[in-house]
Amino acid sequence: MQDRDLERLNDNAILGPLPESARQALLKDAFELDMPAGTTLFRQGEAARFIHILLEGSVALIGTSDDKGETVVEFFHSGAVFIMPAVILEAPYLMSARTVEDVRILMVPGEQFRTLVEQEHTLTLAVARELARHWRLLSRQVKDLKLRSAPQRLGAYLLSLADTDADSAQLQLTEQRGMLARRLGMTPENLSRAFSRLREMGVKARGRRIELTDIPALRRFCVYDDLA
Amino acid sequence: MQDRDLERLNDNAILGPLPESARQALLKDAFELDMPAGTTLFRQGEAARFIHILLEGSVALIGTSDDKGETVVEFFHSGAVFIMPAVILEAPYLMSARTVEDVRILMVPGEQFRTLVEQEHTLTLAVARELARHWRLLSRQVKDLKLRSAPQRLGAYLLSLADTDADSAQLQLTEQRGMLARRLGMTPENLSRAFSRLREMGVKARGRRIELTDIPALRRFCVYDDLA
Repeated sequence: MQDRDLERLNDNAILGPLPESARQALLKDAFELDMPAGTTLFRQGEAARFIHILLEGSVALIGTSDDKGETVVEFFHSGAVFIMPAVILEAPYLMSARTVEDVRILMVPGEQFRTLVEQEHTLTLAVARELARHWRLLSRQVKDLKLRSAPQRLGAYLLSLADTDADSAQLQLTEQRGMLARRLGMTPENLSRAFSRLREMGVKARGRRIELTDIPALRRFCVYDDLA
Repeated sequence: MQDRDLERLNDNAILGPLPESARQALLKDAFELDMPAGTTLFRQGEAARFIHILLEGSVALIGTSDDKGETVVEFFHSGAVFIMPAVILEAPYLMSARTVEDVRILMVPGEQFRTLVEQEHTLTLAVARELARHWRLLSRQVKDLKLRSAPQRLGAYLLSLADTDADSAQLQLTEQRGMLARRLGMTPENLSRAFSRLREMGVKARGRRIELTDIPALRRFCVYDDLA
């Protein structure tokens, strides 16, 4: 493993708090994979065989339906550990995962992870805390989907990527427009209309490069606070 | 505490697995409250002071927004323990809670819960597993909101309350129509239209009493399987 990867693991929500012996036990049979953008890591319905630790790049969790195609439930970025609930409960994946950019992933055998979660208290606690954070992220998304209009959802998503205490920000989206539309629960056409609508709140978009020139106005429009 | 309540705690996902000493430590300063339907237990934004263990009745978790009113994120029923993420992370509630029926609730001081989650491995593990289940429930709801039409969402919700291996079922909804509409992310008018649409799939509704006469047809219409 590269030095910068090892350094990143020290900051990782799951691996960071582990004593050295537990980390070694967890990573004993782990291996690294480099994969290009667009790779399917696993499919909805499959048994969960690995915990994926994202060392670099980003991944989309994708829900599929026979008649409606697919949607993006969430994007995961460097540092993310997924999908713990499926591994812990020995349950099939509820979603597929596909790489959005080129990625480097540390693959940890699921059974070793599950066994250590049962035995190693430091890991159990780190997992409980991380799942609590994940639950809050999804709760926000459910509120977002039910309470906000399409332009408000787009605005709130852009704000979540920025330092919202500043007045302005420059963002670089990692995902394609189509994937972003799915993550926000709208069609590509609605996404374009939402970007147009946000122009008057100082949102300038050029491809994946986004400029927010009036964050306070955008926050007001999206009813964006620390709770949503 | 009543005998049947003690019995229920043995089956509880969080308290059930605890050794007697840990359970006593957790419940040392706990107390019971009886409250009528319509009571607000806590509000979005407040500091999380208690873990609520629902002994009887049901509760709605409600997201609010200044400009759009409120929505129902989820209903919790007898046996539910909430809201653990806020207490574990010492974070403000992301949602309010309001009783849907008359309830009896065991109130456990949050600080005792948090301390024991850090120290008592049996509890940490039970919490991690329960949060994993909660995360999967919310993931399903996000997929449901993004992939299903309004009638399909209603159908899938009714199926989640029934034994879907049977051919037919009788259900009794605990929540009012308006709350159900919010939980499903639709207006009351859309909910009425959704009920009408489901008639041809054998869904008969009379007030809160629902009869499903053709579960296989309803499953097909909603693209309902064990993963969604």
